[in-house]
This record gives sequence, structure tokens and C-alpha cells, in this order.
Amino acid sequence: MKLQSFPGCTFVDGGVCAAKGFKANGVCCGLKHQALSEASEPDNQANGISTAPKKNDLAMIAADQECNVAAVYTQNKFKGAPILVTKKHLENGKARAVIVNSVNANTCNADGVEKAEMMCRLAADALQISPEDVVVASTGVIGQTLPIEPIAAAVPALAEGLSVNGNAEAVHAIMTTDTREKEIAVSFTLGGKTCKLGGMLKGSGMIHPNMATTLTFLTTDCAISGAMLQQALSDVVRVTLNRVSVDGDQSTNDMVCVMANGMAGNPEITKESEDYLVFRGALYAIMLNLARMCAADGEGATKLIECIVSGAESEETAETIAKSIICSSLFKAAMFGADANWGRIACAMGYSDCSFDISKVDVKMASAKGEIAVAEKGFGVPFSEDKAKEVLLEDEIQVLIDLHSGECAACAWGCDLTYDYVKINGDYRS
Amino acid sequence: MKLQSFPGCTFVDGGVCAAKGFKANGVCCGLKHQALSEASEPDNQANGISTAPKKNDLAMIAADQECNVAAVYTQNKFKGAPILVTKKHLENGKARAVIVNSVNANTCNADGVEKAEMMCRLAADALQISPEDVVVASTGVIGQTLPIEPIAAAVPALAEGLSVNGNAEAVHAIMTTDTREKEIAVSFTLGGKTCKLGGMLKGSGMIHPNMATTLTFLTTDCAISGAMLQQALSDVVRVTLNRVSVDGDQSTNDMVCVMANGMAGNPEITKESEDYLVFRGALYAIMLNLARMCAADGEGATKLIECIVSGAESEETAETIAKSIICSSLFKAAMFGADANWGRIACAMGYSDCSFDISKVDVKMASAKGEIAVAEKGFGVPFSEDKAKEVLLEDEIQVLIDLHSGECAACAWGCDLTYDYVKINGDYRS
Repeated sequence: MKLQSFPGCTFVDGGVCAAKGFKANGVCCGLKHQALSEASEPDNQANGISTAPKKNDLAMIAADQECNVAAVYTQNKFKGAPILVTKKHLENGKARAVIVNSVNANTCNADGVEKAEMMCRLAADALQISPEDVVVASTGVIGQTLPIEPIAAAVPALAEGLSVNGNAEAVHAIMTTDTREKEIAVSFTLGGKTCKLGGMLKGSGMIHPNMATTLTFLTTDCAISGAMLQQALSDVVRVTLNRVSVDGDQSTNDMVCVMANGMAGNPEITKESEDYLVFRGALYAIMLNLARMCAADGEGATKLIECIVSGAESEETAETIAKSIICSSLFKAAMFGADANWGRIACAMGYSDCSFDISKVDVKMASAKGEIAVAEKGFGVPFSEDKAKEVLLEDEIQVLIDLHSGECAACAWGCDLTYDYVKINGDYRS
Repeated sequence: MKLQSFPGCTFVDGGVCAAKGFKANGVCCGLKHQALSEASEPDNQANGISTAPKKNDLAMIAADQECNVAAVYTQNKFKGAPILVTKKHLENGKARAVIVNSVNANTCNADGVEKAEMMCRLAADALQISPEDVVVASTGVIGQTLPIEPIAAAVPALAEGLSVNGNAEAVHAIMTTDTREKEIAVSFTLGGKTCKLGGMLKGSGMIHPNMATTLTFLTTDCAISGAMLQQALSDVVRVTLNRVSVDGDQSTNDMVCVMANGMAGNPEITKESEDYLVFRGALYAIMLNLARMCAADGEGATKLIECIVSGAESEETAETIAKSIICSSLFKAAMFGADANWGRIACAMGYSDCSFDISKVDVKMASAKGEIAVAEKGFGVPFSEDKAKEVLLEDEIQVLIDLHSGECAACAWGCDLTYDYVKINGDYRS
């Protein structure tokens, strides 16, 4: 996927380790789906030696010094225990480290909060910091007891192995059904100082807009107050991750967390200054690309769908329509088939909860192979099916809607609905 | 699928022809997807003789005398042209006939209203009635011009062939991706007179609650005023078809229409009397079973999912939660895999737009093979995966949620998400 650039930002390597003063690591501690561990061992372990490649399942990010932290969380009423614990720990707006596991979501478990607190204590002991300075997150199967032993056994080595090049191990550890590591970093300049901001994201299924959408961890060496950090994060999440949907299911464990350690030495951002706008721009560049990566790597996806609604009376209307389209199962399946069945776009617009004049609606579909107009003024127009097929066989598709009713616009990101989505989710726990 | 019976009603044969004074018919007039007709002919027609079985695509229902008519329509803003025309024709609450085609939805076409009016005129001419007494409906691909010639050519024979046994031909004609004919009829007694009520339904994809959900045509010989007929229909649709979802996509062409010709000779129902309750009960029996048939034959479905939420503070809360669960793609995929991944039920409850106490929630899953408790008081409980698999491999699954917070309950119906859903919709138009 081509990265979308942003003025004033330069893409750099390093993900969550790009910024000064952050280290990361990831290991395989051996968490397994409970359903599996109850059954007999898999065949490839019959001779006692696993031949399957080991996947990391436990990650840590640690800051050299105390950070201002901002976060947004899922609004699902069934909140994962790690969400409850992290919220409490971040009440003072400060943190030093993140510990996160995949495989098990530690959600809907009677001992969930206790286990999440234990994870924080284990990390804190290894790093010699306070447990209240630890952010904890989990992702995986809901409703199965989290075995703490493998985590307890692994944390000392996990902490020992922290490094400024550890981002690759860390991003690998947070993947679940993700097929690609999703990380990114940018550098930008504030007050003559080079700042960096980097992040990693997991998220492939149970992805739907509402506050957060996924697990995302961001680090920056920019000096910025907790309040301004939170404002920037909330603003940017609203127009990026909150406009991504893979399957309409909003996770119980969503969290986006950004840590700022101030080590770049820029004058601290404490209000809506020019510097704030530069920082927010950098954050937007990061989150926009992570959002696109998230949608493109949706479970089973073969293509990224970007829906841009313009000419709307309000941004809210544009957003509502764009989200409705990228969430439509019928439209998503048509995209898998590279079928320009735009009636499903009209259908999804028509049941979205907003008002617009259908007699002014123009619809186009586009990709690197060109653009086709499929509807004008609310009615279908003739188009070449061959050209449409060529356009839609690409792996990044744009749906362009012009409502011709105002000046507002919004973009939402989704993916196609494929056999593999069904396969992945038909028996996720085994 | 086993029919669900209702006190005072007896199931009878005949579908829309069960009631006195109604005839029906269906033919293949040769409507084709435009995309196909533009391309070269399919292989099986290479020698000029089609070897594919002919599927009816045009149906008619005619009443021997004028009927009181009630209807509910889709709330999609992109309404099919037939919806606009039918609404106008039913302003006086009277009708004599229905004409309906599949293959092409006649929606988002510049000449859509004109074509829908032409269909009514063709039917009216053949039946020697007024065009304003004709209900018109279409279902199929959106945004492709409806060719009127095949319909014009077929209507005379269609009308000529009307019979009191024509329900089977008619129900076949309204099928699109449906795999089974969906029709049903009951008899009941009012004032010593035997009344009958029957109906047929199409609907397999683009099925989501909001006013109607599908094309459904009902006929009855019961004498009932237009106002009471509308009240009964609206009441019953609310708790039946409006609680069905196959894919979350609300069609542009949904319509439920009931015609009452009064030929049973019962004293006309004109208020909320005992007789009204009997009639409404019969209508509920019909619509409940059609709703279940609709969900069970959802595109690609291998099983019917029935979600019953009880112990709610309000019916609205129960309904919101039940719908949220049966709409969850992740849950639907898990059901396809017979995977008791109940965390997805918790997830879907948690993001539903209502409030409840998660610490009181009990969740069970059941089928003809028995019942398993998967969560109690909001937390997971141990269960046998083998037993769960046995329960979930059945083709009718119940999800039973008890909120332990009140006396209200609601049921919603859906189906699993399968490879075939993706296959059917990946290239629906060809």
C-alpha cells in the first residue's frame, strides 16, 4: 500500500521505537486458545518439537522517562478488563510502559481485572517502575480465562530484551488474524528541533468505528502537555480510525494510546499554537496511514475500499453516508467480485440515517486504472462493463460520491467481503 | 423448517390462492440482467436452444372483487419506482390486482415511474380493471433500465392463465436468489364463517429490518375495514419481518401488501373487537412463519438463528439486543462454523444502542440437540466444546439471553454467514 504523505512530515523507520527514549520488544510466551489446550496436542508437536513458526504473543514498550499519555477507548459496554485497569492507571495522565498480549482478550472473565493488574505488576517489577505507570492491553478470544503463568515466566526476558530496534518484535506480537505488520513513523520539526512520532496497530477483525477501533500504540519524543495530547488524539481519531470498518463489529478491547516523553527538546506545546497544528498534522499522517493499513488488512480482504463523499451540507452527513457504504455486506461482496453493482451503493446511501437530495447524487468508481461514472443525478448511466471490471480488479478502490448540496466532505475506509473472512471467522478459536 | 402454530389457526394449502376469490399465475417472460444481454450468449444457448430450466419472472394476483388494501413500504430514501406508483394507487385504500416481476428492480432509472405505470396499465387492460386498482412491485438488479417489451408480450397469457391453483407459479416468479418457495396459508373462524388468509414472500438478500424487509403479498377473504387491516399489518410487521436480518442491507423495493375481499361473509371488522384479535392472530401466524422462512433461506444460509432476549426492562431493549446479535458478521460466521464463540454475542450486546446491567446477563445456546449455558452474570462459564458443537451443528439454533432486569422480551431472526453468501453476491449481476 502506498503511504499517503502529509506536508511537513517525512516518513522514517522504527515504528514505536522511532522517537528518542523508547524501547520495545516482543516474545512468544506460549499463550494458546483454551479450546486447543484442552484437546490433544497438534500433530506437528507429536515428537515433542513444534515445527510451526512461533508467533510472538507478548509485547512491551518502555519509555526512558515519564510520559504524558492520552488515550481513547472502546465504547462497547462489555469492556475488556485491561481497558478498566488502564483507564484507572491513566487517571493522572502519566505512564512509563505498555504491556500487551494477543491470543486472549481477557474479557468477560471473573478474574479479568485481577489478571490485568498482575500483568502490570509483572511489567513494573521488571522495569523497576510503579504498576500505576503501566498501560495494559489484551486482544484475542473473549471469555476464556487468561493463563498468567506463561506471561509471568516471559516478562523478565521480555524486559531484558528491550531495544531501540525492538519495534519489529513488538508489532509482530500484537497481530492476531492480521496478515501484515502495521507500523509507521514520521519526523517533523518544531522550534528547530527534530521530533519523531511513530506507532503500531493491530486490527483485522471486530473493527468498526466508535472511539478507537483497534489496539494502537503511539510514541513521540515531542514535548506536549497531556491536555493538548488528548485533544490532538481525539480530533485525529475521529477522522481516521473512527471511519474504518471491517465487519461492523465494535471490539470490547479497543484502545489507542499515545505516549509523549518530551525528549526532542522542543518548547512544550501547551495550547492551540502553530506548533500544535504541526504536531496534530504529524499525528494525522500516522493515523491516516494506520487506518488505511487496518482496512486493507481487514480479515480476508483482497482490497482497500476508500469512500469519499463530497458536496455535503455537513461533515456529519458525508461521514454517515461514507460509513454506510463501506459497511454494506452486499457492496463489500460485490467489490470482491469486481462487480460495478452500484445499486448497492445507492441502497446503502438510502438507508443511512441522514437526509440528502437523491436527485443530485453523482457516483463514480475509481482506481489506478481510471475512473467510471455509474450514476448521475440519482439515476444510472451507461458504462462499459469491461472498463469497470478493469478498474475494480485493482487492490485499492475509490468510491466517489458528490451530493452537490454543500461544501463538506468525509472519507471512510473498508475492505471487501471474501470467502476468507468466512473461513477465518467460522472457527476462529481453533 | 417446522411451522410455528398459533391458537385458533389451522394451516391450509394454497398460499395467496387459499382465500376465496383470489387467483394467481406466474410465467417466464424472459427478463434478463442487462449485463448478460450485452455479453455473448451463454454456452448453453450456443445451438439456439436454452438448456437451462426456465425460471418464472412475472407474477399476477387478481381478486374477483374490489379489496380493501393495506401496505407497508421500505424506508430507504432511494425508493424503487414501483413503490412510488403503488403508494399513489393505494391512496384510496382499494385494489384489485398485483403485478410483480423479478430480475430487475426498476429502481434508480430515469424512466422507472413511467415503466411501473405501464406495467399497471398492461395488467389493467388484461383484467379489464382500472390501472389505479393495480399494485406493482419489482425486485432484482438496481439501476438497469427495465425492458417493458417482454412484460407487454407476456401479460395477456399471464392473465389468461390465472387460476385458483396458480399460487405455485406466482411464488416461483418472485424468487431471486431464494432457494425455496415461501408461501403459507391459514384458516380461522369469525362469526361462524370460515376465513382464510394466505401469503407469499420473496427475500433472501438485501434483508434488514425497517418497515417491511422484503416483497410479501397476502390475500384474505375476511371482511375487514381498510383502517383495521392497516393497523393489524403495521402491528404484526413490527414484531415479525421488522425483526429479520440477513445482511443488514435494507432494500429499496420492500413492500408488504395485504388484500381483503370480504368474501368469507363474516361481519366486517371495523374496530378492536374480539374478531379483530382473531384476525390479527392469524396474520401473526402467517407473518411469523414467513419471517422464519425468510431468515432460514437467507442468501447462502445453512441455518436459521433465532435470538430470544428476555428479562428486559423494555421490549425496545430486548429487540435492540436481539437484532444486534443476529446482525453481527462475526457471530454469523461463528454459527456457520458451529463454533460456540459466545464472546461475539457479548460484543454485539455491548455495542447495541441500549443500556442494561452486564453483570446480570445469562447466555445459553440451544437447538433440537439440547442446550448449553455459556455465560452467567456476564462472565464465561465452562462448557463442553463437544456438546456445544453437537448443539450448533443443527440447522435451527436458538440464542437465549436473560437480562434479569424486567419482564419484557423480543425475538429476532437471522442466519449464518457462509462462503455461499460471498459467492452469490460477488457477482450477482452475471
